Amino acid sequence: MKTSVDCIPCFVRQTLEAVRFVSTYPSVHEGVVREILRCLARFDFDQPPPVVGQMIHRRLRELTGNPDPYKSVKERYNRLALEMLPELREQVKQQPDPLLASVRLAITGNVIDFAAISGLTEDGVRSSISRALAEPFSIDIDRLRREIKRASSILYLADNAGEIVFDRLFIEQLPTDRVTIAVRGRPVINDATLDDARAAGLDEIARVIHNGSDAPGTVLDDCDLTFQAHFNAADLVIAKGQGNYETLNDEKKNILFLFRIKCETVASRTGFKTGTNVLTGTPGKNG
Amino acid sequence: MKTSVDCIPCFVRQTLEAVRFVSTYPSVHEGVVREILRCLARFDFDQPPPVVGQMIHRRLRELTGNPDPYKSVKERYNRLALEMLPELREQVKQQPDPLLASVRLAITGNVIDFAAISGLTEDGVRSSISRALAEPFSIDIDRLRREIKRASSILYLADNAGEIVFDRLFIEQLPTDRVTIAVRGRPVINDATLDDARAAGLDEIARVIHNGSDAPGTVLDDCDLTFQAHFNAADLVIAKGQGNYETLNDEKKNILFLFRIKCETVASRTGFKTGTNVLTGTPGKNG
Repeated sequence: MKTSVDCIPCFVRQTLEAVRFVSTYPSVHEGVVREILRCLARFDFDQPPPVVGQMIHRRLRELTGNPDPYKSVKERYNRLALEMLPELREQVKQQPDPLLASVRLAITGNVIDFAAISGLTEDGVRSSISRALAEPFSIDIDRLRREIKRASSILYLADNAGEIVFDRLFIEQLPTDRVTIAVRGRPVINDATLDDARAAGLDEIARVIHNGSDAPGTVLDDCDLTFQAHFNAADLVIAKGQGNYETLNDEKKNILFLFRIKCETVASRTGFKTGTNVLTGTPGKNG
Repeated sequence: MKTSVDCIPCFVRQTLEAVRFVSTYPSVHEGVVREILRCLARFDFDQPPPVVGQMIHRRLRELTGNPDPYKSVKERYNRLALEMLPELREQVKQQPDPLLASVRLAITGNVIDFAAISGLTEDGVRSSISRALAEPFSIDIDRLRREIKRASSILYLADNAGEIVFDRLFIEQLPTDRVTIAVRGRPVINDATLDDARAAGLDEIARVIHNGSDAPGTVLDDCDLTFQAHFNAADLVIAKGQGNYETLNDEKKNILFLFRIKCETVASRTGFKTGTNVLTGTPGKNG
């Protein structure tokens, strides 16, 4: 999807939050915000929002000389999620529909997002996850089940660190010999990379690749050829997170998006309310 | 006060709301937002926030060729407030402390602000005003009473149309022969001009002047000499609205600010919470 003019105030706010996260110097805050304002003023709004995010966070890494400012945050949320994993796995087993239960937990894990969500805390994540199976929820689980059954190859696009541990519960319900999991190629915000996939133990249950890109989404032109080949060959793509939705929703490809709606722009685009957890698909080749 | 880096996302949001208010063309929305981003990127943050507002709204008026885009809104809220005036005047009379009651209504009227408040409605204003006298409220009314008593000349700086009608209730409690009321020199957002002062009947109870400026605050250097002379000569300045606070709070002058705290930046600067109605002063020459 294209970037909306409504995304602009939000990007400026995100820039400010991010620069404060990586630096305590007011002069750095002001300098980065000024630079991002200049970039936004000439930005090609036909590009999806994660391309703006990519630009902002590249600049932050350059300015701070820190190639992975969110490293400790990613480790912290991986650890938190791993602590919760054994008990959640038991809960999933005991549910009448373990696939549905695991999907609900995986989508709820999408709250661990340092780009779109202000004031994220470990307690907030614990509380969201503990409510995930009890709250009313409506997804087209039959479509998901059907698509999984008929796909001879599934590409699973992960989103954030921490969240990726909850993805594991879902991926364990899939025919893992037919699954490839893809993470970002390089650090950007708290998006999951190969390190996080390994921390979550995903490499023990399925093939894991990276996409070669540092966009907080899947900008196909920016991904490496290996990833592109996997993407093109997959019968079904399961894409986690709003960034993957924003970059892939116009693709002519069979994609199921699992994410939390984090802003009004995507809410109005999808027809769901902000704050809801959704499973929605492209019309797809098997539509 | 200087502009904070935290004001920037808010200005971009305000620009978007304002350009949608004055034009229905998406290309105009995008063009104005891009231009304001460029201006913000090079803006002198030592200037107070209303100087940014002045720039944004000048540009909007130029682009739309409409010298007063908020004219009908101003007329609507003047009418609304005038409809409420007789009953409120009765209520003020019946209160044990009519001065305090009128001040509370005048400050509550500061919700009629198309710059800082999103989604303003007539019902919202009616509801705020009807609660104004019933809610807990803490202002230093004794300081106000003392300052009024000893001032041989009072300059009352009005803020918005509609609000100015509620100001009248307060001004009627003052020694009006010693009061001069000042409004903006030219239209900007829904700020009150001479037309609004006349619509509210303020010219019938005190001397009314304009400040010669189109800033949504009181930028002294931008005001005309007549206004500056009144400002310098006044023993006491009573300044309504956050814009007047932001532009005058560092002045070495006896000023009492009456306004609703509309953002976190001013909240942290003043020590009050966002959404509270306050009366606060400069240390002043009579401190």
